[in-house]
Amino acid sequence: MPVTITALEDIPFVKPGDDVAALLIAALERAELAPRPFDVVVVAQKIVSKSQGRFVDLASLTPSEEAIELAEVTGKDPRLVEAILREATEVVRAKRGLIIVETRDGLVMANAGIDQSNLSAADHGRRVLLLPEDAQASADELKARLDAHFDGAIGVIVSDSVGRAFRLGTVGLAIGAAGVPSLWDRRGEADLSGRRLEATDVGFADAVAAAAVLVMGEAAEGRPAALVRGLDWKAPPRPASALVRPKSEDMFR
Amino acid sequence: MPVTITALEDIPFVKPGDDVAALLIAALERAELAPRPFDVVVVAQKIVSKSQGRFVDLASLTPSEEAIELAEVTGKDPRLVEAILREATEVVRAKRGLIIVETRDGLVMANAGIDQSNLSAADHGRRVLLLPEDAQASADELKARLDAHFDGAIGVIVSDSVGRAFRLGTVGLAIGAAGVPSLWDRRGEADLSGRRLEATDVGFADAVAAAAVLVMGEAAEGRPAALVRGLDWKAPPRPASALVRPKSEDMFR
Repeated sequence: MPVTITALEDIPFVKPGDDVAALLIAALERAELAPRPFDVVVVAQKIVSKSQGRFVDLASLTPSEEAIELAEVTGKDPRLVEAILREATEVVRAKRGLIIVETRDGLVMANAGIDQSNLSAADHGRRVLLLPEDAQASADELKARLDAHFDGAIGVIVSDSVGRAFRLGTVGLAIGAAGVPSLWDRRGEADLSGRRLEATDVGFADAVAAAAVLVMGEAAEGRPAALVRGLDWKAPPRPASALVRPKSEDMFR
Repeated sequence: MPVTITALEDIPFVKPGDDVAALLIAALERAELAPRPFDVVVVAQKIVSKSQGRFVDLASLTPSEEAIELAEVTGKDPRLVEAILREATEVVRAKRGLIIVETRDGLVMANAGIDQSNLSAADHGRRVLLLPEDAQASADELKARLDAHFDGAIGVIVSDSVGRAFRLGTVGLAIGAAGVPSLWDRRGEADLSGRRLEATDVGFADAVAAAAVLVMGEAAEGRPAALVRGLDWKAPPRPASALVRPKSEDMFR
């Protein structure tokens, strides 16, 4: 059986207070895609974040001394830098045009994942959108709602599109994951020669997110979610935090 | 239309000199999946490499002084380290149990992508398998053969499963890519608010490889290839080298 990835269409523009689970359920039912076990619904962080009202008016922020210094180094708006620093536990790298931080969730990403696209034209330069408050909690909550509605055991991944070390181009990443083995430890399974695999932890939820983001498109409104069907796994669920390489073991930190 | 990812089944164990294009054509025909435009065939580097006879007998290698030193630091077999160094242009990081190098293709990866799984039990510790000689050339050649046979314009990606900075778990990566926009520059497209996207270079071929590797499995024999159908792109083809972040622009080098 092939794996199929279906974008969920016609999800309305999300506003603060909107019920993302209800929007996903409606979209799945419109598409006649009642989820089944081993189905995974992938949701762009952007709509989760908007539903949580994670907008910040830049004018409301007073840049700290650190933000002002970092704004000088990077050439960014000091108020945007302030917003980034408030989401960060550590500045990992900074240069002109770029700030890479670690977020509270341990994600290493540019601008703490703060997004300025897909805000209204009037918002540009005025307000920004932060990542969801707790993407893992959002994934857990969406899964509970979907499971209850469809009487199933459905996987949910909250995705973001991110840049990478060594590689150009963004790919989808799992920043929240419920009901799936985010990190799938396949060590101990035998390879074809009968030898046990030695070092095969699979970044399963990240790969599913990368696949789904292909159909969700970059302008992640209208198609901010996808259903991935036909996957199979033999491993217990693990949250997205399982994908975070501990800083102490990371040679690039 | 959903994107579908179909593993190509029953591809025989590949030996040096085997014709990978013929094996793929046979597998596609068995599955009644004659490729069409915008279809992408993803092939595990391992079978390309085996067809090229990229095995190295460790006993045939005399470790250099550098290899011996690096073997001490990392605890690895000095002959394996010698094999890694011969594939590398630079040692990027090394610590106990781990050597990360840059390959001739600009890939930053552990052990220069040298693989010891899926070799026969007798081979273990005796010989290793290098990456394909030139994965991009292999992708180009496979595409030419598939295009000629199916009278189409088919994309081909040569994939590998690799570890990453900041994240645990391997994901598929495109180390060769023909007929697809490996890096898809979407800047200039408008987002939903009508604002032009500012910074959206998509790592398209990497995401397709990540998706395909999900169905190919880690023990990449028997199912060492997949057909991805239903993608769409509006960008000229670019080789896998377009995904390599130039060292001078990489803050983690």
